[in-house]
Amino acid sequence: MPASNSSRTVFIVSDGTGITAETFSNSVLSQFEQVQFAHVRLPFIDTLEKAAQAAERIDRAATEQGQPPIVFSTLVNQEILMRVRQANCTFLDLFGTFVVPLEQALGVKSSHSIGRSHTGATSEQYRNRIEAINFSLSHDDGQFITDLAQADVILVGVSRCGKTPTSLYLAMQYAIKAANFPLIPDDFERGTLPKTVMPYRNKLFGLSILPERLHEVRNERRPDSVYASLKQCRYEVAEAERLMRREGISWLSTTTKSIEEISTTVLQEVGLERRSY
Amino acid sequence: MPASNSSRTVFIVSDGTGITAETFSNSVLSQFEQVQFAHVRLPFIDTLEKAAQAAERIDRAATEQGQPPIVFSTLVNQEILMRVRQANCTFLDLFGTFVVPLEQALGVKSSHSIGRSHTGATSEQYRNRIEAINFSLSHDDGQFITDLAQADVILVGVSRCGKTPTSLYLAMQYAIKAANFPLIPDDFERGTLPKTVMPYRNKLFGLSILPERLHEVRNERRPDSVYASLKQCRYEVAEAERLMRREGISWLSTTTKSIEEISTTVLQEVGLERRSY
Repeated sequence: MPASNSSRTVFIVSDGTGITAETFSNSVLSQFEQVQFAHVRLPFIDTLEKAAQAAERIDRAATEQGQPPIVFSTLVNQEILMRVRQANCTFLDLFGTFVVPLEQALGVKSSHSIGRSHTGATSEQYRNRIEAINFSLSHDDGQFITDLAQADVILVGVSRCGKTPTSLYLAMQYAIKAANFPLIPDDFERGTLPKTVMPYRNKLFGLSILPERLHEVRNERRPDSVYASLKQCRYEVAEAERLMRREGISWLSTTTKSIEEISTTVLQEVGLERRSY
Repeated sequence: MPASNSSRTVFIVSDGTGITAETFSNSVLSQFEQVQFAHVRLPFIDTLEKAAQAAERIDRAATEQGQPPIVFSTLVNQEILMRVRQANCTFLDLFGTFVVPLEQALGVKSSHSIGRSHTGATSEQYRNRIEAINFSLSHDDGQFITDLAQADVILVGVSRCGKTPTSLYLAMQYAIKAANFPLIPDDFERGTLPKTVMPYRNKLFGLSILPERLHEVRNERRPDSVYASLKQCRYEVAEAERLMRREGISWLSTTTKSIEEISTTVLQEVGLERRSY
């Protein structure tokens, strides 16, 4: 007898980290707004013993809650998968569901190998990713400027418009060397781009933001300062946008966008596209 | 007539960023080692017009390559989906495939609403995430120490063992305030933890690494330095592990692990678990 339809436990069971499956399950489940979900990730389930423990945990949740949990699985090994599947649950086989149509389309058999979703720590790709993270960190907020020629993209915009999180995300997810450089009142008075970034005009991309939102964000960090005042925010945003328009720099507004959305748009606009890791 | 079975174009079509679908498709396709895949992400396909353009692009690839591309879709709107599906392709409907069994299991209908996978930029969750990123940035490498009481976890370990990327990933993906603090020769000579982190012993988690790997990593940054020498790396790693053992601090080896694997293990070991965003 279902205890309640408005709350459900969701298990994400994986032989790897389960992070991809977790993000995916969040996406799919966001289509069911009426239901509250409690997520439990069970990573590194790569032996029959761990599979049995996972199944036990799922069964226990089923008993306690009076209804079978939802299970999202990216298990590859069939023995391990079948063991978890014995639990009292709605079992969704994320990989298996697509492996058969893919085998047909590709005309080859899948390798059924475990934990291949992230690149190993010693691979070339992985090294590129770490290098990009280090680059974005050391080129945050215009602090290190000698290496800008190596940047894939240089984000410009007023303080607190979202440059730093976007730079780090681009590095982390796409191994893109993203520097960022602030536009400050000095630049607006002079009426030109900072001299440091001028040679790299083709790498520049602007972020802007509604002054009202910027005021909120800055106020959290420096309450009641001139820096955070609505007047100052309006001035800086208007001047930054005027400068970018005059210099022919594309920009987007970050006001209602997530880091992922900003990053995706930046990639599209500057014509960069990399594989995710 | 198939041109070749060893290379295939994969389109990721989404009404949002498509990042989740892209990561997912990479995971599934890594099961087909024999085939080379070229990934094309088509984000923000949220109108019939954009759907028609996407379908055209897929059809063009089919013609040029003499075989239908693979399409991973997270389109929610059925009209848009049906338009893309008309293209010559193997169409894999990531969301739809699981929506029906989920509707049955949950006893409710899905809302079929678009682009709900990332939390909006003005939500509480999103603010937490940005705050965590700022925290991890300002508490990188022991540089800012006054706020450590607010940290969810403090990573310790020798220079270049993976503390910084892990801290940033934990913040970005899980809104976890992860500080990190280096263990340096001074600490080994004194034989105690750095005084700054002592009050937060229950938040400490160690990262270690094989000396041979550390030598490689450091050598890329400072070739032929004492700092990068195998001898120095052996000394620091041995001393750091001895110190952590004596102080009862759990640690893991990062040598062959991806950032995602390290982060997942840290979360498990320190008993932190957050929803991904």
